[in-house]
Amino acid sequence: MKLCLKPFIYAGMVLVLFSCNGIVDNSTVDNSTVDDRTMGQDPLPSWNEGKAKSAIINFVDEVTDPKSSNFVEVADRIATFDNDGNLWSEQPMYYQLIFAIDRVKQLAAEHPDWKTQQPFQAVLENDIPALLSSGHKGLLDLVMATHAGITAEEFDKIVKEWLSGSNHPRFHQPFNKLIYQPMLELLTYLRANDFKTFIVSGGGVDFMRTWVTEAYGIPPDQVVGSSIKTAFDYNDGNPVIRRLPEIDFIDDKEGKPVGIHKFIGKRPVFASGNSDGDLQMMQYTAAGSGKRFMLYLHHTDSVREWAYDRESYIGKLDKGLDEAAEKGWTVIDMKNDWKVIYPFQLTVPN
Amino acid sequence: MKLCLKPFIYAGMVLVLFSCNGIVDNSTVDNSTVDDRTMGQDPLPSWNEGKAKSAIINFVDEVTDPKSSNFVEVADRIATFDNDGNLWSEQPMYYQLIFAIDRVKQLAAEHPDWKTQQPFQAVLENDIPALLSSGHKGLLDLVMATHAGITAEEFDKIVKEWLSGSNHPRFHQPFNKLIYQPMLELLTYLRANDFKTFIVSGGGVDFMRTWVTEAYGIPPDQVVGSSIKTAFDYNDGNPVIRRLPEIDFIDDKEGKPVGIHKFIGKRPVFASGNSDGDLQMMQYTAAGSGKRFMLYLHHTDSVREWAYDRESYIGKLDKGLDEAAEKGWTVIDMKNDWKVIYPFQLTVPN
Repeated sequence: MKLCLKPFIYAGMVLVLFSCNGIVDNSTVDNSTVDDRTMGQDPLPSWNEGKAKSAIINFVDEVTDPKSSNFVEVADRIATFDNDGNLWSEQPMYYQLIFAIDRVKQLAAEHPDWKTQQPFQAVLENDIPALLSSGHKGLLDLVMATHAGITAEEFDKIVKEWLSGSNHPRFHQPFNKLIYQPMLELLTYLRANDFKTFIVSGGGVDFMRTWVTEAYGIPPDQVVGSSIKTAFDYNDGNPVIRRLPEIDFIDDKEGKPVGIHKFIGKRPVFASGNSDGDLQMMQYTAAGSGKRFMLYLHHTDSVREWAYDRESYIGKLDKGLDEAAEKGWTVIDMKNDWKVIYPFQLTVPN
Repeated sequence: MKLCLKPFIYAGMVLVLFSCNGIVDNSTVDNSTVDDRTMGQDPLPSWNEGKAKSAIINFVDEVTDPKSSNFVEVADRIATFDNDGNLWSEQPMYYQLIFAIDRVKQLAAEHPDWKTQQPFQAVLENDIPALLSSGHKGLLDLVMATHAGITAEEFDKIVKEWLSGSNHPRFHQPFNKLIYQPMLELLTYLRANDFKTFIVSGGGVDFMRTWVTEAYGIPPDQVVGSSIKTAFDYNDGNPVIRRLPEIDFIDDKEGKPVGIHKFIGKRPVFASGNSDGDLQMMQYTAAGSGKRFMLYLHHTDSVREWAYDRESYIGKLDKGLDEAAEKGWTVIDMKNDWKVIYPFQLTVPN
């Protein structure tokens, strides 16, 4: 795959079709033995000792201590996590977009008109300038053709099948194996301390719901994401939900606090993200009364994962990095704070 | 209060401002001792033995038995409950509408123009023909003037204050005390069997979220309801969610399965409602694979609560009653199946 595109901006969401960063086709693994894991004491064994790890543990200790003035009731222990680039990787491009492209190719035989119709022709021919010139409308057409027009249950099945057969170009693993081991530990640690963990992502909610329970232990009703409209169809007594070719909600930037309010109904006390798309979620979380924790993941590891921030088309982290420094939010330095990236790289599997 | 209105139909939702049923101003209480409660064995002590109770218990026994062919995995144990007329009473009119009317009266001093502007003038003067003639637009104006234009946190505070000072005209209790003791036991019983219990109601989601956790043990993120749009406001560094005067979603009739899909992301295995507004939720639940349970509450108790069904402006149960009979769904006969209606009537408090 040799495509290289400029980003599409749609409804406040930056979507990059093909990254120009250059794929380091190098499955370098961390061979640390993660000694702490075997001790059964450390709640975050894949995290190196340091500011980020200490800050997380100190926060959890404090808000769960009934004697602390910063104690947070169990009902208020809401933790929200961005997904792309925060719980799983997002390079060389969002995996949901790879799904859309793969699905266009799969469906092409049923749509002979796509051979001469943009943006499909561009996808089928890997014709970048043509794909670019299809603009926002092109991206929307791509999403609708690949995500709508079927029932919810059909879509779920299609995503599951695609994912199980998928193969990341660098790591040669299905995309849902490219989840971050240290973040899995963080989710488990928070839940063990009676936090309710939610995903709040710009990704499609129904795309995520097919696999996040197995990956992260987060049930479908705790996933907030972007969505298309749906409709109830009585379907001759066998009712189904039909997916309609119309945007319902974009859960990105200002949309994230709106989505949190709409789906969760409480202001989080813990928010975790990796891009400027998460900044409003961070600001909203920080502005609540009492102790709050804002956590940015900074992609600094060009060897084991990817290094990108202020100039990246995907997962751009620029204003967020400045505001984190200014406000004293915790920033994970992936290269130095994490002993291992992915679960399949563990030498002592969990 | 002597108002008597015809229903407004708005976006598929029947809203009755003032019922013509005639309020039986008679706080008749059930003085049953609820003997079973003291035995500590019966999971539904406020339910008389009978078809409804047996059907519920048999269903739960079956789907939680790993040896049964109808076993349902814990992750799939999704139970959805309508609220108005199903978990709490809805007569003589929806309590959220009483909130809106009370709020108009409370805000009237700040809005001198309301004295000559419909539908506010009608509410302030109890002028029924004028209120009626304001139609759908009038109801919408009423909702927007009382539910929008403030922050989410302000609205939450306003509802809480209103509720604590509210007084039901017949039972002389705050409205949130008019919850059904047998349904509380059912919610507890299902949760004890690892069901996740959700509210799926035509009522306003943020109105419900202020009090349902205390009333039913259901957290805010497990409440699906109708909503107005909201927006993120950075608010000079103190971000808030602002409530906008525009309908976002109506969670009624066909909207209920859509809301279930949107917020829960799974088809329920257990659905409970009391009106034709719940019929599509029942149909959607029934059409899933494996064992399912559909439960209608039939208001048959004109002495202890209210008796209404096919002809009622509020909570009309007509098509649902026919379909329940035809499909063999369970119907609660309130008069005969329930030993007691409200928790405050228990002679041996739980």
